[in-house]
Amino acid sequence: MKRVGVAILGVGVVGGGTFKTLVDHREFYQKTQNVDIVVESVLDNNRERALSIGVPEEALASSIAEVVANPNVDIVVETIGGCGVAKDFILAALRQGKTVVTANKELICKFSHELEREAKRNSCGLYYEASCVGGVPIIRTLLDGVQANHITSMMGIINGTTNYILTQMAQSGAQYEDALKEAQRLGYAEFNPTADVDGFDASYKLSILSSMAFHTKVPFAKIMREGIREVKATDIAYGKELGYTLKLLAIGKNTEKGIEARVHPTFIPSTHPLASVNDSYNAVFLTGDAVEDIMLYGRGAGSLPTASAVVSDVIFAATHSEIKYSTFKNTATASPETKFVANFESAYYVRLSVEDRAGVLAKIMGIFGKYGISIVEVAQKGKENETDDRVPLIVITHKSNENAMKNAAAKINASGIGAVESIVRVEK
Amino acid sequence: MKRVGVAILGVGVVGGGTFKTLVDHREFYQKTQNVDIVVESVLDNNRERALSIGVPEEALASSIAEVVANPNVDIVVETIGGCGVAKDFILAALRQGKTVVTANKELICKFSHELEREAKRNSCGLYYEASCVGGVPIIRTLLDGVQANHITSMMGIINGTTNYILTQMAQSGAQYEDALKEAQRLGYAEFNPTADVDGFDASYKLSILSSMAFHTKVPFAKIMREGIREVKATDIAYGKELGYTLKLLAIGKNTEKGIEARVHPTFIPSTHPLASVNDSYNAVFLTGDAVEDIMLYGRGAGSLPTASAVVSDVIFAATHSEIKYSTFKNTATASPETKFVANFESAYYVRLSVEDRAGVLAKIMGIFGKYGISIVEVAQKGKENETDDRVPLIVITHKSNENAMKNAAAKINASGIGAVESIVRVEK
Repeated sequence: MKRVGVAILGVGVVGGGTFKTLVDHREFYQKTQNVDIVVESVLDNNRERALSIGVPEEALASSIAEVVANPNVDIVVETIGGCGVAKDFILAALRQGKTVVTANKELICKFSHELEREAKRNSCGLYYEASCVGGVPIIRTLLDGVQANHITSMMGIINGTTNYILTQMAQSGAQYEDALKEAQRLGYAEFNPTADVDGFDASYKLSILSSMAFHTKVPFAKIMREGIREVKATDIAYGKELGYTLKLLAIGKNTEKGIEARVHPTFIPSTHPLASVNDSYNAVFLTGDAVEDIMLYGRGAGSLPTASAVVSDVIFAATHSEIKYSTFKNTATASPETKFVANFESAYYVRLSVEDRAGVLAKIMGIFGKYGISIVEVAQKGKENETDDRVPLIVITHKSNENAMKNAAAKINASGIGAVESIVRVEK
Repeated sequence: MKRVGVAILGVGVVGGGTFKTLVDHREFYQKTQNVDIVVESVLDNNRERALSIGVPEEALASSIAEVVANPNVDIVVETIGGCGVAKDFILAALRQGKTVVTANKELICKFSHELEREAKRNSCGLYYEASCVGGVPIIRTLLDGVQANHITSMMGIINGTTNYILTQMAQSGAQYEDALKEAQRLGYAEFNPTADVDGFDASYKLSILSSMAFHTKVPFAKIMREGIREVKATDIAYGKELGYTLKLLAIGKNTEKGIEARVHPTFIPSTHPLASVNDSYNAVFLTGDAVEDIMLYGRGAGSLPTASAVVSDVIFAATHSEIKYSTFKNTATASPETKFVANFESAYYVRLSVEDRAGVLAKIMGIFGKYGISIVEVAQKGKENETDDRVPLIVITHKSNENAMKNAAAKINASGIGAVESIVRVEK
């Protein structure tokens, strides 16, 4: 039986889960995959942590040089994260001819071209299923499951922290700040939550997935990014009444006008399969010209679910050493003919506060009309407090575009008869 | 650029979609996959049909011998179906060293061992993603996406016709016969619907998927099969009141006691992700020991969605001719150590009609208790007609097992105080 040696760089949440999965399943993989996968080496600057999860003392390496010089190591797993030492370590491993499996979304988003160039140069594999959507095999699906299709659209709930917060807000009516605190208390959100709540994490993943889906690099810088800090419980509640559910969606579209890539709070119909993806679950909804709609759903984070993706890549690499994937084609930027659409089309939910007197509604509608924005539905709500001199007005529009909506909102705000309180994009 | 020739055997619904997809996307695959895939040959006993979808006269072959003798054909796509000529044609292609891609679930279920033996002998690939769940890449996922896991459970809605009928029954309250007629009128069900409504189609697919998930052959004969002919609209309605949705589920479990494989109408909580898979959509919900729960959702049938799977296999084979999959390990039967569980455990929904007098409920509960069946919930309903001398009684049980439930039902029926009208298994 073929013997394959693995090194794990970093045994925190994901690396620790990877160590456990490989050790616990060693016989299982011998039997089912006809390969003996052995953890040969572990590198972690916290030796105590490594020992406490059962790494044998003799497997603990003291430097990356020691790891990559080890002739028994065939595959190097990088679960450190970030673009610091992780990048140097991966390059060192590739230069020594080791195949690399990584869970590092920021690094793959920003430096895949450098890493893939080095992998190609040394005839190594480079795998990163675990970089996106935890245990859900979305990268394998894009590569080998739906590659027959022009993928025209991708909509994903690909950040568990924000989905947990938004689910809590929807279910309990809590405001953002309170839901965030609860998520932090339960360990779903970091003390400094910016990577999640400001949409960075989702944008890294969207860059990776849309680059793969659309066969051209979609750089992080081309992604329009809005987080969930400004989401109001009142909009979630009004949306619900109208049959919509609010999610932080990562959206990639490939239309005749070009590529759109954006991360922002979005209303989707409550009957849409993505609407019932709750708590820390993730899902990606793809549309292709042959397959129509498909959705993949599962745990988007966590120790063992992410380890499932890491170890599935390790097994694939161990049992298919004859093939190499190099899917990004080593570019840092999009191909020259790629166009990106900034002024994208969307339908909108708009909440205004307006003076409660005859003629105001007509004037507001007139302003929308002037900017070519046609209206699906208008609902005037009762005063939120008796002392308010204005009432909430909810407007759902047909498809318009970003510029028209921004201009209409500015005009309404300048008119003195009403103010735009919230704008949420709507996808069907 | 590498040139790969394809032959298509049978250009009906799926074969026709495959032809269209390959022809329409030829340049796209040149650009995105760096391979030129050309339809070299088409075999169909209805030449008019082939010509009408655009097959050029010169590509029309007159015999399988002509197809497999063609040196320009590298990959043979079989989209005829059934276990007749399809099998002979595939074997002929493999013997000539052609890689085969098939959408044939019955054939793969029953004869994969023979086909794979021949593929191995001739160093050919054999691919069958399209045999299960249309365009949803469930086989690729089991092979290369979650293979790090012990898969402990699989629950699938893997037959579109029955899901369409059950969705209609749930939404309109129609009885089975009427919903079937409507499905036939719309082309969702065949004139002779037995393959779908009696669960054969779902069982073939469950055999393929559970064999792959559990790493041992799960033969068709080991699958417990109950179709939807006996499903009553009244049970769907009572279940809904209690928070359950009725689906025809294909269930595979791998427990310490052994493997269970069964296809039957099942109540699942209406909050379960499978409960909102409606109409002709399909989904497979997997549980693994690392990945936890994941679900794949999409079109389980149809011309282009199924062609998506066929053509994705064709591209994979064309771009990875160096690797061969042979996942069933060529066995006709399960490995000797495999145990199958016939008397499986389940929770149950039971609808009885009982005499409406004091003491009857206690006696019924006593009989369940005698067979070790404990009760979660009991709901006595009003008479359905004023003239009835009995009233409906709905019972939801904790986990019990098939034998206990059958014995308890027989005892109740023999008691004279009530009759068991329906038993539906319940999964959480």
